[in-house]
Amino acid sequence: MIKQECIDFLKSYLPFLKKMSFDDRQDFFNKAVLRNYATGEIISNNETCSGMIIVFKGQVRAFIGSKNGKQISIYRLLEGDVCVLSASCVMNNLTFDVTIETEKDSQIIVLPSEHFERFVKNNTFIKDYVLAIMSQRLSDALFLIEQTLFSSFDKRLADFILEQANIDGANVVKITQDTIANHLGTAREVVTRMMNYFENEGYIELFRGGYKIINDKALADIANL
Amino acid sequence: MIKQECIDFLKSYLPFLKKMSFDDRQDFFNKAVLRNYATGEIISNNETCSGMIIVFKGQVRAFIGSKNGKQISIYRLLEGDVCVLSASCVMNNLTFDVTIETEKDSQIIVLPSEHFERFVKNNTFIKDYVLAIMSQRLSDALFLIEQTLFSSFDKRLADFILEQANIDGANVVKITQDTIANHLGTAREVVTRMMNYFENEGYIELFRGGYKIINDKALADIANL
Repeated sequence: MIKQECIDFLKSYLPFLKKMSFDDRQDFFNKAVLRNYATGEIISNNETCSGMIIVFKGQVRAFIGSKNGKQISIYRLLEGDVCVLSASCVMNNLTFDVTIETEKDSQIIVLPSEHFERFVKNNTFIKDYVLAIMSQRLSDALFLIEQTLFSSFDKRLADFILEQANIDGANVVKITQDTIANHLGTAREVVTRMMNYFENEGYIELFRGGYKIINDKALADIANL
Repeated sequence: MIKQECIDFLKSYLPFLKKMSFDDRQDFFNKAVLRNYATGEIISNNETCSGMIIVFKGQVRAFIGSKNGKQISIYRLLEGDVCVLSASCVMNNLTFDVTIETEKDSQIIVLPSEHFERFVKNNTFIKDYVLAIMSQRLSDALFLIEQTLFSSFDKRLADFILEQANIDGANVVKITQDTIANHLGTAREVVTRMMNYFENEGYIELFRGGYKIINDKALADIANL
């Protein structure tokens, strides 16, 4: 059973808990566990099957990787965000190779697969919730297809630079150009070229291992073109 | 109420019908309607909200379009295939711009939105089914991201050439290079260049408005590289 702090946290983020019977809710808290992950650890991939995960503290991303090491982020999870792809083994028709990895040291609440499966099977409230999450992920994936195919790279990069500053809550962001390339599904050289262009235009200032936003309005204009 | 032929068809393709009560099943058949569409007609897009659709006869595709007219197919629906994105208006968190369009003259069985919504809300069997379909669509979308970003275009085109012949059940396929480009999310010139290469290698023979497969083994080798 997870500690009271986690229970309070779950109650505030998982709307279906309120609708459940007292016994079901206690069952949920009894079966959930809290796990610690260091930065860059794999929480779930094609070979593992963690179950439903909720980010208690930290930051997580889901990505697709290619055989030759290229990556692209599908979505990112912040505090209170839920991932059900990590329970894909117990979901019919989910057959793909998504990796879930921590971006910061993280504490993750996990409802292990066998219990997740039982809840989804028997509880209509959690079933509704999983359907809503799945729809959200499908929207994210379709948006990503639209972005990668039809959006020019300056727009995508400007969007990422602002989003990352927003996540970090600061206009100075420590992130390597390799990491940005892996989020955006492209080569490091492509990121470098565009970051240098943004710097020359006075939108950002580059330093080793990161950037500082100088003109967020100009970046927002590019992102929203 | 749809005709008996459609009822028999639905019974063979929709596994949840068997599990429903007699009254619910009759209600489903009573509310379903059969609609005719000509080739190239839009069944559903961001502005319309048809409900759940099942292809009775014909062929349909779901695609994303860009502002400047580029397109990419997300998935294709053949006889017996079900689409729930066409009911996105009644599904929470589904916010994207997918268009559902006929590729051939088609007969489509539709369960209109308001009834679809009611069934998904109240019936656990149809809820399970929608969750399974949604997972399948998410898998399709993630596979497409992997393909478009990490797979070289010769592989994707060889795969499409073979898949299309398979759908048509013939090694002579009537399809324009513009249409292929719209399925694969690229420019017509890119398709033309690669098709000409395939022809020079003796894999296909081009004619106005289509192609004939000459060496399916070579194409399969490229597709599976």
